[in-house]
Amino acid sequence: MKLTVIKIGGNVVDNQELCSQFLQDFVAIDSPKILVHGGGKIATQIAEKLGIETVMVEGRRITDKATLDVVTMVYGGLVNKNLVAKLQSIGTNAIGLTGADGGVILSKKRPVATIDYGFVGDIEKVDNAFITSMLDNNNIVPVFAPLTYCKEGDLLNTNADTQAQAIAVAMSQEFEVSLVYCFEKKGVLSNPENDDSVIEHLNPEKYEKYKSEGVIYQGMIPKLDNAFKALKDGVKQVIICHAAEVKQAVNEGIAGTKIGF
Amino acid sequence: MKLTVIKIGGNVVDNQELCSQFLQDFVAIDSPKILVHGGGKIATQIAEKLGIETVMVEGRRITDKATLDVVTMVYGGLVNKNLVAKLQSIGTNAIGLTGADGGVILSKKRPVATIDYGFVGDIEKVDNAFITSMLDNNNIVPVFAPLTYCKEGDLLNTNADTQAQAIAVAMSQEFEVSLVYCFEKKGVLSNPENDDSVIEHLNPEKYEKYKSEGVIYQGMIPKLDNAFKALKDGVKQVIICHAAEVKQAVNEGIAGTKIGF
Repeated sequence: MKLTVIKIGGNVVDNQELCSQFLQDFVAIDSPKILVHGGGKIATQIAEKLGIETVMVEGRRITDKATLDVVTMVYGGLVNKNLVAKLQSIGTNAIGLTGADGGVILSKKRPVATIDYGFVGDIEKVDNAFITSMLDNNNIVPVFAPLTYCKEGDLLNTNADTQAQAIAVAMSQEFEVSLVYCFEKKGVLSNPENDDSVIEHLNPEKYEKYKSEGVIYQGMIPKLDNAFKALKDGVKQVIICHAAEVKQAVNEGIAGTKIGF
Repeated sequence: MKLTVIKIGGNVVDNQELCSQFLQDFVAIDSPKILVHGGGKIATQIAEKLGIETVMVEGRRITDKATLDVVTMVYGGLVNKNLVAKLQSIGTNAIGLTGADGGVILSKKRPVATIDYGFVGDIEKVDNAFITSMLDNNNIVPVFAPLTYCKEGDLLNTNADTQAQAIAVAMSQEFEVSLVYCFEKKGVLSNPENDDSVIEHLNPEKYEKYKSEGVIYQGMIPKLDNAFKALKDGVKQVIICHAAEVKQAVNEGIAGTKIGF
């Protein structure tokens, strides 16, 4: 049986119009599905207003206790519950989850090496049976905030791309999983200056070639490394596409970049 | 089969020590159980820091859009998910829910009569079958934030006492339900100056008598009206007790005020 795991980034969450259109397309996807969302700039804005300094190291947010509270509020509350309520209003029965809910994603607080990331989680275990029980219960659509928990009882800030990948891999034990990363470009581009230069297919050889030529740019590299790791770990296909083209990409296969071996 | 629905107020949520002790006692309650939590002062504090004015009319918060966002963050995110993570750490598999999740509690935005309460929900329907499916799924404990939703896709701020009562009544179709209101007193007091003057049993006649004598004070009246309404609607018993005595009250029946006919 097919299952689609779709990740949307903060840029989709922050853009009300794009987000509404995305949700309309999302509910039109044929197979059972799971949504994983990122955080967006709202967390940074709210932290600022609350007088909490946002510290980024190498593009990653350092999550001290005050920052953890903000992301718990914004990701786990504001963003997650509004997505769920909107999905309900367009006829899709959704449930909002963090990794703590139902104990579905257990993590370990990242050990301090050179950098102390604070309350950041590295995923240890996804309870795929629990997620399947949700999908089986009146076709509920799980909507995941990028938060997990550790057995000590702390919530942990967790990278949404990684979380989507871990969920997709775990669900591959029972389903034929497509993992879809939605963002603000139409796919992986061969020319960053040209939004229409979408690379339709990527395999490991092409990927290495594009990297060596500098065609695939820095921010895309961890995304694609994640994609290939997901495929190696059992995910059937990975798609990278624009949030406004998710229906065409998933249902019809006519948009975005398809990644395979 | 027995089921216990327990409501804790903001004063428990705000008091870390009391809350920890409560959770330890809560997990020791024998029957399947559901937790409903209030908001606490954190929402007001955060609203203040964000420059959002809190407007109360007759003890009720007026929920404009900015305030709705704050309570969604604080009740649905910060408070709810931390309770869930703490319950997980002490061996109880909990799931945090608002009424929007699984479409479990549908409300209607309160119509404007003399006062416009804003985004406040009056409960229309509780999906007891969905809650039962959670309880049946590995004995998961549902933890409800005081938020519901309407079919237009808005989240709605909802009184936690009323929400606990509506859940207890709906669950009475399948279970023998005890509804427990925990607060900072040992029960309903016959002398507000004496914390040990707990009225052990209350029935409608005694209630009317105490009210006419002015023994039962203002804030307690809506709580007790809710309690008697719950009994009329099928709940087996209502208990009002201190958050630190919930185990004695529920498991042993030796604390708090028991309310019946």
